[in-house]
Amino acid sequence: MAKKGNNKEPEKKEIGITAEKDEFSEWFTQLMIKADLADYSSVSGCIILKPSAYAIWEKIREEIDKRFRVLGIKNAYFPLFIPEKTLAKEQEHIKGFSPEVAWVTEAGNTKLAERLAVRPTSETIMYESYSKWIRSWRDLPLKINQWNNIVRWEFKNPIPFLRTREFLWNEGHTVYATKEEAEAEREQVISIYREICEKFMALPSLIGRKSEKEKFAGAEYTISMEFLMPNGKAIQGPDFHYDGQNFAKAYSIKFLDKSGKEQYAYQNTFAITTRMIGVMFAIHSDSKGLILPPKIAENAVVIVPILFDDSKNKVIKKAEEIKKKLERFSPILDAREGHTPGFKFNEWELKGIPLRIEIGPKDIEKNSAILVRRDSSKKEIVKISEIEKKVPAILDDIQECLFRKAEKMLKDGIVKTASLQETIKAVKDKKIALTPLCKSRECEDMLKSRTDGAKVLNIPEKQKPRNERCIICGKHADYLAYIGKSY
Amino acid sequence: MAKKGNNKEPEKKEIGITAEKDEFSEWFTQLMIKADLADYSSVSGCIILKPSAYAIWEKIREEIDKRFRVLGIKNAYFPLFIPEKTLAKEQEHIKGFSPEVAWVTEAGNTKLAERLAVRPTSETIMYESYSKWIRSWRDLPLKINQWNNIVRWEFKNPIPFLRTREFLWNEGHTVYATKEEAEAEREQVISIYREICEKFMALPSLIGRKSEKEKFAGAEYTISMEFLMPNGKAIQGPDFHYDGQNFAKAYSIKFLDKSGKEQYAYQNTFAITTRMIGVMFAIHSDSKGLILPPKIAENAVVIVPILFDDSKNKVIKKAEEIKKKLERFSPILDAREGHTPGFKFNEWELKGIPLRIEIGPKDIEKNSAILVRRDSSKKEIVKISEIEKKVPAILDDIQECLFRKAEKMLKDGIVKTASLQETIKAVKDKKIALTPLCKSRECEDMLKSRTDGAKVLNIPEKQKPRNERCIICGKHADYLAYIGKSY
Repeated sequence: MAKKGNNKEPEKKEIGITAEKDEFSEWFTQLMIKADLADYSSVSGCIILKPSAYAIWEKIREEIDKRFRVLGIKNAYFPLFIPEKTLAKEQEHIKGFSPEVAWVTEAGNTKLAERLAVRPTSETIMYESYSKWIRSWRDLPLKINQWNNIVRWEFKNPIPFLRTREFLWNEGHTVYATKEEAEAEREQVISIYREICEKFMALPSLIGRKSEKEKFAGAEYTISMEFLMPNGKAIQGPDFHYDGQNFAKAYSIKFLDKSGKEQYAYQNTFAITTRMIGVMFAIHSDSKGLILPPKIAENAVVIVPILFDDSKNKVIKKAEEIKKKLERFSPILDAREGHTPGFKFNEWELKGIPLRIEIGPKDIEKNSAILVRRDSSKKEIVKISEIEKKVPAILDDIQECLFRKAEKMLKDGIVKTASLQETIKAVKDKKIALTPLCKSRECEDMLKSRTDGAKVLNIPEKQKPRNERCIICGKHADYLAYIGKSY
Repeated sequence: MAKKGNNKEPEKKEIGITAEKDEFSEWFTQLMIKADLADYSSVSGCIILKPSAYAIWEKIREEIDKRFRVLGIKNAYFPLFIPEKTLAKEQEHIKGFSPEVAWVTEAGNTKLAERLAVRPTSETIMYESYSKWIRSWRDLPLKINQWNNIVRWEFKNPIPFLRTREFLWNEGHTVYATKEEAEAEREQVISIYREICEKFMALPSLIGRKSEKEKFAGAEYTISMEFLMPNGKAIQGPDFHYDGQNFAKAYSIKFLDKSGKEQYAYQNTFAITTRMIGVMFAIHSDSKGLILPPKIAENAVVIVPILFDDSKNKVIKKAEEIKKKLERFSPILDAREGHTPGFKFNEWELKGIPLRIEIGPKDIEKNSAILVRRDSSKKEIVKISEIEKKVPAILDDIQECLFRKAEKMLKDGIVKTASLQETIKAVKDKKIALTPLCKSRECEDMLKSRTDGAKVLNIPEKQKPRNERCIICGKHADYLAYIGKSY
């Protein structure tokens, strides 16, 4: 046994998660707090993103920025506040957002002449400027993105990461001369978000079009990525809105085309939010704590040297050599004194480090080290000379396994249904139903009330024409839709 | 002459700056708008940071983050809103900020039970958490930084970049077990800010301690970097506050030391804001437009091919070859049709690109290109084979020259004074006075009223003891202080 330090070590049960994953809400809250990801603040519904969670958000931002840059999308910053008059210009939009707007009404000791909305999204303030900036076809396309904070004062029960009153996101707002160009961006943007979710966060999703009822307030149509949470609820991730000329008409975004004719422009907006990191934590993690996909983890490897008084220096030296070889995975070397190896193993498992390397004097004698995967707990003894080759291979495999596992969970969570009864049962069983529906608003409303709140998540694109019947009205179904309870 | 396109080109005088730099306010506003850096928004006092200005901010952030990381400072995110009760816990602090706080009082249709401050700075909300997170010496040091948006509803006349009601910044908030450790961070942080200002933004500054009157509300002392604007006004840049145990006592940030005794912690805070990019624009630029130091410019080089119908392809091909060789300077290749070379030269001068490369068919015949510096307008004909070696050398020289020029301006702007009369004259002459003062608040107040608003900017550290007299009361002077009108 390694020598214990002088300071009392907290018991495992104090620091570890005491809930199983199927008690989702309690488990998720404990995960957030104990894995040091976030904390509650004194403002109800607003959480603190602690460094380990924020580092993941920074990585997402960096990867997306890299890809946006290739598309010519540039970052900018618009004001946090939106005058009430500006916010109210697009009717559908204000209707959609006004119930959740936080209003600034005073500054210092002065009552403001006009209320200022804390941005619930920035279409309105951005498009007022776009209308000034865009004059001719030469000014198009205009592709601007912001990374900022958003406030939506929801009165539903807040849930850390998943539904918070303030969150961080990107909001892309692009303007094109033609419908075709604008719509061509859909695939470009969705494929970026998809790559970030699948390749980095190891999260598969259902991609499709929102129903008329569920689309973004002001958009022509919305493409969304929907994820399945461990408790059977769906949750919406990144989305893309094709706005057509709706905002262009409300905010007078016009340009002279090459023939000198005045035209309204076509617009898109798209976003990914900090909610996604919560979705990722929830889907991969287990009752021992966080599990992070290696490609998104700030530190993909932790090295724990097994320290005895008589061989300490030698072991630490070897651990440092290993650390150096693995630099590109930002390994942590945990040489803290006063904690047992067992304590450290538990702590790094709780914090989700994908791969642990244990090395002690016995291992050094055999020129080997022990590698332990966080996802499967599988141990492997590896020659030190092979670590450099072995670690990336194992990390790749962890990344792949997490994705496959999540993919299976998603696939197993979907049931094809052909009647209302089957759909009600699927929803009760905490599944997502894939169900024929017509596009009438009445049928969608009816579906929601009959299933106790399940809704159309989205509608897969490129469906083959079918001879199925809407499960509500029995008329010809327009499409198969994903249906489920949702955050 | 190159062939003109079909579209009418705007006249130079429409797009160029029509004010000279000595009409500072008009010149600076035109610079901001015409160099495409920022724009006004419909919220008074809040500006839009357009992509070219925001890219500079991103570069500053990236360089600082790199250096903070080495110090173990980690990024996190705390809520935008601060409950009134939380904000009010530290008396000096709330007194300093409350006249400028924007308050959220309503959400949706609901009046909030307690007003929420839009953060004017985050000490109060962060330290409430710190008090929960810090238990023992093991939890220290705690080094957290945020990059976020800040609102201070100043009622003074807003000036784009320099005094805006919303701005972006970093706020570092660190906690140490001892005074010594906390104070040791001062040099580390100031040297980072100094490096960013001097080596990247080419801006020299006066570094010193704020007077008791001017220090940060709640700090033990404040170290500031002061810059001299072209209109003779000083402006405060990055700062560092040693808070001692003031906030620790107000927010109960205590820890058990190694001997098991409870102690209050010691704290620092430090910041750099988007104001600095405005300071940089103002100091380096001229009546032709923006001048950017190469190390901070998003694009350090622009290549303008001189296009004629019969040699267009050949010239563009050569321009692309040059572009490829200079990849690390992110060169722009401006091969737009329908604009004359002269129009392009003016546009890129207006936008501050440090170095222009002109290449036409005649140049290709001679295997050369023309390099034109933005700072001095100096032209140089360079062999194409030498461009790769020549460009970095010229860019380094531009960087150096801009710093030297700003340094001379700063030096020439300082006058040593020994009496109130001399000081009044220096201030009238739009200089910074270096003046003996005692530390009494009364003398500082008197100085301000007698000089029509000049104040102590800061007090250089490590002064040798002097036998000088305070210019106000005539008693022994405690120090020489920089005095001037300030934003």
